[in-house]
Formats: sequence, structure tokens, C-alpha cells
Amino acid sequence: MTDPLTNLVKTYHELNAAVVHELDEQPSALEFMRHVAVNRPFVVRQAIRDWPAFQKWDANYLRQVMGREEVKVAITPLGNADAVVENKKDDTLVFVEPHEIFEPFGEFLDSIQRSSFCTTLTGGHVKYAQTQNDNLRHEYASLSPDVPTDVPFARIALGQKADAINLWIGDDRSTTALHKDNYENIYCQVRGEKDFVLLSPVEMPCVNEQVLARGRYVPVPSAGAATTSDDGGDCDDSGIGELEVQLDVDAERVPVATWDPDEPEKRTTAWSHLAKPLRVTLREGDMLYLPCFWYHKVNQRVGDEGFVCAVNYWYDCSFEGSSFASHSFARDVYLAEQRRPEYPELKVGGETEGA
Amino acid sequence: MTDPLTNLVKTYHELNAAVVHELDEQPSALEFMRHVAVNRPFVVRQAIRDWPAFQKWDANYLRQVMGREEVKVAITPLGNADAVVENKKDDTLVFVEPHEIFEPFGEFLDSIQRSSFCTTLTGGHVKYAQTQNDNLRHEYASLSPDVPTDVPFARIALGQKADAINLWIGDDRSTTALHKDNYENIYCQVRGEKDFVLLSPVEMPCVNEQVLARGRYVPVPSAGAATTSDDGGDCDDSGIGELEVQLDVDAERVPVATWDPDEPEKRTTAWSHLAKPLRVTLREGDMLYLPCFWYHKVNQRVGDEGFVCAVNYWYDCSFEGSSFASHSFARDVYLAEQRRPEYPELKVGGETEGA
Ligand SMILES: O=C(O)CCC(=O)C(=O)O
Ligand SMILES: O=C(O)CCC(=O)C(=O)O
Repeated sequence: MTDPLTNLVKTYHELNAAVVHELDEQPSALEFMRHVAVNRPFVVRQAIRDWPAFQKWDANYLRQVMGREEVKVAITPLGNADAVVENKKDDTLVFVEPHEIFEPFGEFLDSIQRSSFCTTLTGGHVKYAQTQNDNLRHEYASLSPDVPTDVPFARIALGQKADAINLWIGDDRSTTALHKDNYENIYCQVRGEKDFVLLSPVEMPCVNEQVLARGRYVPVPSAGAATTSDDGGDCDDSGIGELEVQLDVDAERVPVATWDPDEPEKRTTAWSHLAKPLRVTLREGDMLYLPCFWYHKVNQRVGDEGFVCAVNYWYDCSFEGSSFASHSFARDVYLAEQRRPEYPELKVGGETEGA
Repeated sequence: MTDPLTNLVKTYHELNAAVVHELDEQPSALEFMRHVAVNRPFVVRQAIRDWPAFQKWDANYLRQVMGREEVKVAITPLGNADAVVENKKDDTLVFVEPHEIFEPFGEFLDSIQRSSFCTTLTGGHVKYAQTQNDNLRHEYASLSPDVPTDVPFARIALGQKADAINLWIGDDRSTTALHKDNYENIYCQVRGEKDFVLLSPVEMPCVNEQVLARGRYVPVPSAGAATTSDDGGDCDDSGIGELEVQLDVDAERVPVATWDPDEPEKRTTAWSHLAKPLRVTLREGDMLYLPCFWYHKVNQRVGDEGFVCAVNYWYDCSFEGSSFASHSFARDVYLAEQRRPEYPELKVGGETEGA
């Protein structure tokens, strides 16, 4: 018999096309619910063209509306906020969160645009406004009138209001590493483009989840870095100084997907080769439904004005039914599989045979 | 670690209430889709009160409309059509289908009513009109104008017409053994009552599915039975003679649930005690949504006129998404678990330790 986990992933792929469904227009609540029911993503091209945000959000306008309001910015050496980093000292993996600073929105946007336009950029870390904490209705409240308060088909179908509305602003260099969320996610691209790589929850055995220690990027103190930025001329972004990973020994270790669908030969499990990542590029105006528990990795490319900007709506998942229980069952079997020693073949009666 | 199958069933029960949800009125298509999405049953009391069938179907009317049309009737000694029977000779289990005859509808209904009203019934086998083959639009086409051609909320939600509409007529003695179907099932009680016992697909490890030989009840030839029925007076129903199980050695063996939630200590698996059967009684006018892949066992009680009558609508299941793959994964793990020998504990390095 093929091993059950192999069968699981293969059966899933036999029953589900390896493409992201494209809809001509936003679905009705009922049509949406059909996608929720089968936990399958779709994309709607040009769905948000009538949003004021889509029409108005250029750099000037954003600067004007946000003024000198302070926003929280993630800073990383490589655009790797919330990502797996190899600890060179002892060859272990660490789940590393970004260094975070508050800075006036205008200065943040300056850095982003500079990173896109300065061919001679020096000293630059990667900044990403990515505080997935309902930031559009808090930090960025001045911009929130430009987007709908909810996605009507999702609100009606799910019988709930958005739990969070998040704004994301960054440049080409930021990548969101493969991970999953407990949210039904309606992701809307306002400026620039994003490449999503999607894996269904059933592909858990492929993503090599490991329980990792946590760390955070922190400025290297000895470097004597200035804490103000942008003081070295237009193409120098060296305000923070060097960043290094500081382990948080007290933090609870977290399970993290360590397989990268873009480097499929690295950090594999026995099942990684069975994964069939779905790839979809969101262009300005597009909307993606990213269902609960799906793994996603995201790359981005700036638009005409040198920044990427997106807004997404998170709705709570339902834990009713069998999906959640089935996914955690697959995880249990996967973990048991890892722990099971390779027993020699036993004869009936319990006598040991040559392995 | 608790074994994964135990965790699966327990997690499912932690996340899902062990009751059949009661709705005040028929759901909208969207509300229905929410139940389909989580694959959870519900009941709507008095949902079909405005059906002509509900208002008109008494014995006289049925006899009048159906006249002398021949209908297919299942005949069993114990009311056990499509059921597991113990083969006394060699202690094996057999999946036994009923003996089937065609008889004029009026005579069939006579037997049913007689079985309910004759306290001195002799020689009676149990009859059940239960040909789950869209019979209402075929054998019973003359009655079909009395029921809706579809259940609107289901047709709209699922985006398809009913695949089959089935009529069921029987008496107290018929039981439908625990089994599952690949259908979304809208079950409507017209006369009498039915007790449904429901188990979710996740409870597969509890139901002791076994791959059984098939058989069929056939009249014992030597008994010299008359093939006409009803010739022995009002309370004698001995037309068929004795029935015995004939094995069908050529038929492919079928997987059959052998655990009976009403005899929970018999034919158990290691997981049967974790089952939480949902019980719901349908009374005249009630409607049950019985989701795809749910195990169900059904008992019945006749109404005032001595018969039970129900109509159900079957819609094809969706095999998209992960439900089907996850259920067959659980089955694979269950089967592997059955085959896995009880290995002695091994020390790291492979040395054998006392078991
Ligand atoms: O846009 C990104 O960088 C990541 C988006 C994401 O992870 C999410 O919406 O959950
Ligand atoms: O009514 C019965 O006896 C059984 C019903 C059933 O099994 C079904 O509707 O699938």
C-alpha cells in the first residue's frame, strides 16, 4: 500500500485542478460560499477599479493624507520579515521577526521610493509596512475612507464583518515567507504587483513544518548607528546600521513551514515533491480569495511610483465541520511518521527477520 | 501521544455540538450553503406542510392514484433490507439484499396496513418500498405532481437539479441499517415517523467497516410456497414462504459498516466508544438535511393509517476541496492501523526490548 500521506496529497490533486479559478466579476454571496465550502481560491481581475483607493492612491496623495503620522515599519536586511533564517553558528533554523521602528509616514514612503529608484543605494535595509493588526482602521485610519468598510459578498456569505483590514506598503525586495493564517482572506492589489504561491492545507506534509526557536533582528549596538535615518543624502539609507539576529530564549518555539516552493530541492520532506503550488500574479485592481489555512508565499514588484500597496480583509475561519479536525489529524500522522523507527519486517509470531 | 485516529474523532466532537441543529423555517440558498460547507445536518420542523402530498396522501388517495400499477417491493424476514446478517454456519457476516417482487400497489399497501393492524398476523415477511432509484419519477410518477419537482434552496445553492427523488413506504418493522451515500439528502417525512441515528464521516473508525461477501434473501424452494400473496385471509400474509440467504459468490465484496449504534457493545472497534451518534426523530411534515458521506441508520413508526411514507431528494456531492481526500486518508490510516503488527518497543540502535 502507498503510504497514506502520499495518497492524501495525490487524491487531493486528482480531485482539484492545479489552477486558481478566474472569475469575471465579484461573486454573489452564494457563489462565494461555494468557494468557501470547498476551501478553494479564486481571483477576480479588476475587481476594485471603483474603489477611491484605486483611483487616488499615488505617492503625493498618500503623503498628503497621512502627513507626519507615525507608522510602524518592519526592517530587515533582506526583505525577510517573519522568516526562517539559518543560524550560521550551529546550523539551526530560527524564525526571525523584523526589527520594528516608528517613523513619520512621509519618511517611510521616501525610503521605499528611494530603494526603487536609486540605482546607487547604499546601506539600505528593507522596509515593509506590514503590521497585520487591522492597521488600516488604526494607524492608517486617515486612508480608510478610500476603501470599502467590508467586502459585501464576504460579509453576507460569512455572516460577519471583517475582523481586520490591513494595509501593506513595501518595495520589490520584501518577500513574505510561506505561512498560513486562520483567516478567510480577501486580498486586493492597489499599486504594483504581487506573485502569490499557494499550497492547500492538505499539502502540509510537503512544507516541512519544524518547531523553531524565535528571534528578532536588532541593530548591532557596537556599530554606533545613528537612530535617525535619511541623513546621508538621497541614495544613502544607512540610518539603522547593521542588523543581527537576537535569539529570544524565553519565547515559546513555533511551528514554521521551512520548505520554500521557489527552492523546491532544499529542506524537503519525503512528500515535498508531491506539492503542486498554485501561482497567481495580482496586478493593480485585482482581488484574490485566499482561503483559510492555505499556505502562501508572496513576492512583489513596485508600480510606476516605486511602491507596492495592497489592502486585505480578514474574516474569521469556521472551525465547525471536519476540515480543521482533518488537517490536524494529517499533522498527527505526519508527526507519528517522523517518529516511527524503521522496524525490521516481523514474521507472524514476532520472530525477527533480516531487515 | 494519543493515537491520531482518537484525536481526530475527539477533536471533531470538541468543535461540533452533538446535536442536530433545528431551523425555524426552510433556509435560504445561502444559509443552506453554510451548512453544506461544514457538512452538518439540520432539521426543519413542519417544512412540507404546504405540499399537496402532505395534505392528500392517505391510503385511499394513494390507492386511487396508483391503481393497479405494479411496484417493486423489498421483502425480508426481519425488516432488514440491505443489512448485515450473521451467517450461522461459519460465523461470518454477509451483506444481504432483500428478495424483490413486483406487485400491484394496492396489494402492497394492503400488506403494509395489515401488518400494522393485525394483532394476530401470521407468516408475515416485512415489505418495504425502498427502491432508491428515482422511483417517484418512474414507478410512482402518478404521485409525483403532489411533491415539488425540487427543493428550491438546495437546487439554487448546489446549482443542480435533484439527481433522484425517492419514495419510501413501509411499516414499523423495517429498519435501514447504518450506511452512507454519496448524496446531499433532503429527507421529508409525509406520514408516520422516522428515527434517524447519524454519525459524521469522521467517525469512520467507529463503525467497523468490513469488506463482506454479498447475498440475497430468496424463497426456500422446497417449502412449496405459493407465489401469490394474500390468499389466506385478512391476517395471514404467508404468500412467499420461508426466505433464506443465498450467497452471491461472484459478486464483488463490499465495505459495510458493521457496528450498530443501537447495540454499541457489539462488533466494536478500538474507536467505537468515541462515537457520538446524533439522534433526531422526523414527524409528519418535518424535513432533514442529511449531508454527504454521513452514516445513517433509520427506524420508523407508522402513522394513523398504518403506514410510513417519506420522500427524499438526492443531490450529487462535490468531490472538490479536501473533504473526500481527507476521509479516504482517515480510512487508509485506519486500515494501516489494523495491519500494523504490535511491535515490541525498540531501543534506539534497533536492539529489541522486552515487549
Ligand atoms: O502581502 C504580503 O506580503 C503577505 C500577505 C499575507 O501574508 C496575508 O495577507 O495573509
Ligand atoms: O428511510 C429509510 O429507511 C432510509 C433512508 C436513507 O437511507 C436515505 O435517504 O439515504
